[in-house]
Formats: sequence, structure tokens, C-alpha cells
Amino acid sequence: MSDLSAATGVTDRPRGTARADAIDRFLAEQRPETPFLVMDLAQVRQRYRQLRTALPDARICYAVKANPTPEVVGELVAEGASFDVASPGEIELCLARGATPESISYGNTIKKRRDIALAHERGVRLFATDSAADLANIAEAAPGAQVFCRVLVDNSGSRTPFGRKFGCAPEQAAELLRRAAELGLDPCGVSFHIGSQQLDPAAWEHGVGAARRVFEDCAAHGVPLRLVNLGGGLPAGYTETAPPLAEYVEAIEKSLESNFAERPELLIEPGRFLVGDAGVLRSEVVLVTDSCDGQRRWVYLDIGRYNGLAETEGEAITYRLRTSRDGDEVGPVVLAGPTCDGDDVIYQRNSYQLPSTLRGGDTVDLLSAGAYTASYSSVGFNGFTPLPTYCVDGDRRA
Amino acid sequence: MSDLSAATGVTDRPRGTARADAIDRFLAEQRPETPFLVMDLAQVRQRYRQLRTALPDARICYAVKANPTPEVVGELVAEGASFDVASPGEIELCLARGATPESISYGNTIKKRRDIALAHERGVRLFATDSAADLANIAEAAPGAQVFCRVLVDNSGSRTPFGRKFGCAPEQAAELLRRAAELGLDPCGVSFHIGSQQLDPAAWEHGVGAARRVFEDCAAHGVPLRLVNLGGGLPAGYTETAPPLAEYVEAIEKSLESNFAERPELLIEPGRFLVGDAGVLRSEVVLVTDSCDGQRRWVYLDIGRYNGLAETEGEAITYRLRTSRDGDEVGPVVLAGPTCDGDDVIYQRNSYQLPSTLRGGDTVDLLSAGAYTASYSSVGFNGFTPLPTYCVDGDRRA
Repeated sequence: MSDLSAATGVTDRPRGTARADAIDRFLAEQRPETPFLVMDLAQVRQRYRQLRTALPDARICYAVKANPTPEVVGELVAEGASFDVASPGEIELCLARGATPESISYGNTIKKRRDIALAHERGVRLFATDSAADLANIAEAAPGAQVFCRVLVDNSGSRTPFGRKFGCAPEQAAELLRRAAELGLDPCGVSFHIGSQQLDPAAWEHGVGAARRVFEDCAAHGVPLRLVNLGGGLPAGYTETAPPLAEYVEAIEKSLESNFAERPELLIEPGRFLVGDAGVLRSEVVLVTDSCDGQRRWVYLDIGRYNGLAETEGEAITYRLRTSRDGDEVGPVVLAGPTCDGDDVIYQRNSYQLPSTLRGGDTVDLLSAGAYTASYSSVGFNGFTPLPTYCVDGDRRA
Repeated sequence: MSDLSAATGVTDRPRGTARADAIDRFLAEQRPETPFLVMDLAQVRQRYRQLRTALPDARICYAVKANPTPEVVGELVAEGASFDVASPGEIELCLARGATPESISYGNTIKKRRDIALAHERGVRLFATDSAADLANIAEAAPGAQVFCRVLVDNSGSRTPFGRKFGCAPEQAAELLRRAAELGLDPCGVSFHIGSQQLDPAAWEHGVGAARRVFEDCAAHGVPLRLVNLGGGLPAGYTETAPPLAEYVEAIEKSLESNFAERPELLIEPGRFLVGDAGVLRSEVVLVTDSCDGQRRWVYLDIGRYNGLAETEGEAITYRLRTSRDGDEVGPVVLAGPTCDGDDVIYQRNSYQLPSTLRGGDTVDLLSAGAYTASYSSVGFNGFTPLPTYCVDGDRRA
């Protein structure tokens, strides 16, 4: 598994081979029907501890949406993590795996009033908001709760930018937080998201700077804030080289120092960073065909955009690949999924090279595929079953 | 339900209100938790019979992928339909609902050898192909089977064009079919797909013309063909006006006449056409917010790209909407889904207008949503459950 270890650019120290071996061992010994995802819980744990050490005063809320496998959530509960949830379903999942209500942050700004009420009934006391309508619902359904307001920031350096769906301008955020105080809520701070798989550590300055402006505006109106929610954006190891965690932490620290005289409370919402590199998605080659125009071969896998690779839409996320023919001579390919859907093409613009000897029945592993794969999978498009997840633990040898 | 009846442009005769009433009655009386899809089986039946009458000598293979709800498949089995399947999962579904193996066409050109073997074991004898590798697998795993070869045709008039994933050039198709004969298979004909939701009836000429060239080439080499598979592409009623079925049939007939001296056997693979207009997707407004820049309101629904509206990717399919505030003054909106995903925006480029009075808790129905919705739904992205489907039957009053 040297590829995986070598190419994961975001760790600060070389990874032990024992952990990588756990997935390798599973792949060699268990051989379930493809496609499937294998997660190494030891790797998730190691990433959590690495971030814990790097940002000791930040509350780490795992973005459950990245990989809601119950074992992954349970592992992070055991580590003392907090959780960023998007829905009542994720709240129930966390509670079922032993998370306390106090460890849960309802981070979705889009929520039904009755879902807020359900969260409140379960004991959740921390909510994101970015609109007057949502704030009014929180005040009614979760009286007295803590709220942070999401500001819209530039996330152009991200592989999967957010567009304008979430967040408001800093002056609107300040207005909403002052309104929150009037409604009897506890306006605790500001959140932002500089975009998932953010390759530019300097991007956090956009968010921290915006947070400062909201802090100042609110303070001037007698509403002191205390929390800066740094959001997500820390990367996993795909084909591009991502800076190491230390560079992100340095940029965040620098930005906090230059914007805040007194250090605020910190919260961070890693998803991809904690689980991305901990997963390997094993697929099988269905067919290799010559293209109609004699250009690149087409390699069809039994995994595609509808059963786990949703993030290859627009070729945003480019997974590193490993095949059972590695070492043989390579040539350019188009990679596609198994459904009858013309959009179920994985990589066509990106020029992937795969062994010329590759044929039906060979395996293709997508490395660092632990985030945003299994839970994106369709229930049964084209009659293909959803992607199953298996968990191993490189620290606990069988 | 006058909106639905009035705006569905693809029927040749006005629809009875009794059928539309069945969905209306369900929505008024049952009120399950949103979002959900309701299918009217009477409408599916009516569409099947309409096509049956319009193309009496064509074998109608329902493209199961469009809506694999078991009741829908069962309804079409009862009508005597055949089935176009994409996977072993769809084969098992059809057989379980009473379809005979002879009524099944394995239409996916991308299939594992063991899936071909499984289909053959179940009695399936008709297979699509478009490559030498797949053909060799069919010859080995389904000896003696009938094969048709898919040619790549221009599908530019389609709302969801296929790109180059499927099909080969006519001369390659002829070569493959001749090879099929050598391998002991029965090379029966040619298929093509002019693209789903094809708004230009003349598009079929591209496919029928290509089929003729393959017929001629094969005949010249002593391999007579007999089947033209017209594929899918017949439309459902979205916001754009689609020509009535009669125009499609006229264009197809004209094309067959001009290309074939002797009328070939026909097969057609409608999916969207049979089930699209038979479904209503009910969603609830989660939140209405003013945009950051004071332009359009954002209306967030509890349905989005990840729990049923996958075909709104790139805003390809534009559903007609009906709200519980219809009649009130309208204004421009951006429509978005409920997840924390920035790409979960339904319509932003298209300028939808919705009532200014719309607020959280109101309903928004997406009309003609019976195709490619529930089965595309993710298993649980962001903790939201997959879209459930309910069936009613407008011909069988409760």
C-alpha cells in the first residue's frame, strides 16, 4: 500500500505501515463482492488526534455528512469529538453512538421548524443560522439556544466551491445576531466555510476577517460575541498536492492574531480531513473497449457517479488510482461507470493513464475515498445496490 | 389538478379528471411526511396503451431504470409489456413481478461476464452490445443468444444527451454483428438512442438511417438483420412544450419508409414517456430567505438534487411546479434543496416565479416527476432518508 502512504500529502509525519496494512489485509483476505468501501478506524483516530494537537483550543466538530458510518461516528465519540450535523437523522445517529447532546452543533442553516424543535427536545443547544426566517424559527422552537451566524466568503480556491447558497454579508450577520439577542437567544459568534478541499491555506483569512467585522459591529451595539467557527475545508489526498496541515494551522493562527486582540473561542468542522484518507474504494473493471474514434480506451468500472462517486461530477475530485496490473505499461483512458446513463462518466477531461493490460475482472482501487462516497450512493439507480462500507482497525490486529 | 392535465403536452387526447383526482385525493387524504412521490398506475397503463395503439407492431420494452417501483413493473407485466433492463437487479425485479425471461432485453452494453451468465441462467436471451470485449463475453456466457448492436448517433436535440459513452460507428457495428454470427450468436439488429427527453421527432432519422447502413453492410456479407431498436427519447411534460406522440410516430414511420424497403421488426424502449407524467412529487418549503444581494428570494425545499431531483443537474429537466399558495402574486426565486451541499441548488439559471406569500410549511408539488427521481435518491446523504414512493390507481376507486 505504498501508493496510499506516499501520495497522501496532508499528514505531517510518515504514516506507519501497520495501519495501511489493515486495509490491505482486508482486501487480500475478505474479498467481498465489488464495489465496496473499506475504512480504517485507526486512521480516522490518528487524524483526529493530529488536529487536536495542532489546534488544542478548538472544539472539533466532525462533519458527519462526510461519512456517517456508525462505527466512524462511534470512534470519534470515544475520542471526545463533537459533531456538526445537517439533519435530525444525523442527530439520532450521533446520540445512538453515544454522543452527548452538548457535543452536537446543528450546522445546517436550512431546517424545518419542527426539526429545530426535535433537536431542542433531544438537548441540542447550538445552531447555525443565516436568515431572519430561520432565526425566528430557532427562537420559537429552541428558546435560549446559542446561535452562530454564517457569513458568505470567497471560496474560489476550493475544488468544490459553495456558490451563494449559504451565508450572508457581515453587516447582515451582525444584524441577525443583534436580533437573536432581542429574541432571547445567545448570539455566540460567526461561522464561515471557505469551500471543501480548499488548497489555499490563506483562504481562511477571508473568513476570519469577515468574522472580526461582525464581532466589531456587534460589540459596538452592546452584543459581545465569543466564537469563531472556522468551518471545513481541510483537504484529503487526491491527485493534486495539498499543503500539509501545519501550513493550514499557521495561516489560521496568523489570521486570528492579525484580526483579534483577544483570542476567540474556536470551533472547526473537519469532514473530509478526518475520513477521506482513511478509506479505499475497491471496484472491478467491467469492460475495456476501444473508443469509437480510435483515441483513448474506455475503462468501465462497477463504480460510478450514481453508486458512490458523486464528487466526480465536473471531475471536481480526482481520486488516486491503484490497479491489479500496476507495473505494466500504461496508456490514456476515459473512465466511466456501469449505468446506462450518459452522464455516468468519471474522468474524461482529466487524462488518467492506466495499464494497457487492464481487462474485465481486474481491480481498480480509488484511494482516499473515505469522504462523500457511500452516503451519496443512490438507493438503486439502474438496479445497482448502494455501496457497502466495511470497517477495519489498523491498531487492533485481529 | 388542472395544472397537471393542462400542461402535459405529450398526450393526444385530453385526460380524464378521474385519474388526476386519484393523486389529488391521496394528497388531500393521506398526507404522509414530505418529501414523497405518488404514482398513478392508471396513467402508466393509459400511456402504455396509447403507445401500443400508435406503434402496433413494435415490441414495447419498458426502461425499468426510469422507475423501478415494483407496482409499476407489475402493472406493465399485466399489460403485456416487455422490459429493457440495465442490471441483474432489474432482471430479478421483473421476474419477481411476473415478467417472463423472454420479455426481458438486457439493454446495458456495460456488463460483467458473470452478470451475462446470470441473465442467461434466468432465461434472458436478448442482449445489447457495442464492443468486441462485451460480445466475446456474451458468446461465452450466453451461447446462442440474440444480440443487437448499438450505434452512436447525434443526440443534440435531447435535454440530456448521452455524449460518447455508448454505441459505435455503423461500420464497427456491422463488423461486430458479423463477428457475432461467427461466434454462434444470433445477430438480430441495431439499436440507437437519440437522447432522453428528445424534443425533435426528426432526430429518429439519425438512428434509423444508421441502422439501414448496418443492415446493408451485414446483408452484403451474408448476415441478414431483422430488428431496429428505436431506443428511448419520448418525452414527458416538463416546462418546455413537447410535440404530441403522433408527431413522433409520424417521423419514425416516415424514416422507416424512406430507409427500409421491407419493414423491419421494431422494438422501442420508453421509460420517461410511460412513467414521467404519472408521478407527482410533493415537497414542503423549509425556508424562504431574501438573498444576500437583495435580488431573488431563495426558496429551500425538503427535496433536492440528492434525494430525488438528480435530473436537475445542469438544470437539464425543468419540472412544472404547483404550490399551496397558487393564485397569489408571484416573484422570481432561486430554488434549492435542504442539504449542506453548495451544489444542491435546483434552479438558479432558470427564472422560476413563485408566490410571494410562500413560507415554511407550504407545499410545492413537482409535476410529471415519475421518472428518474426516487431511484436516483441517495441512501442518506446529510442524514436525509431516500424518497418514498406511493402508488394509487385512478381506475380503481377505493
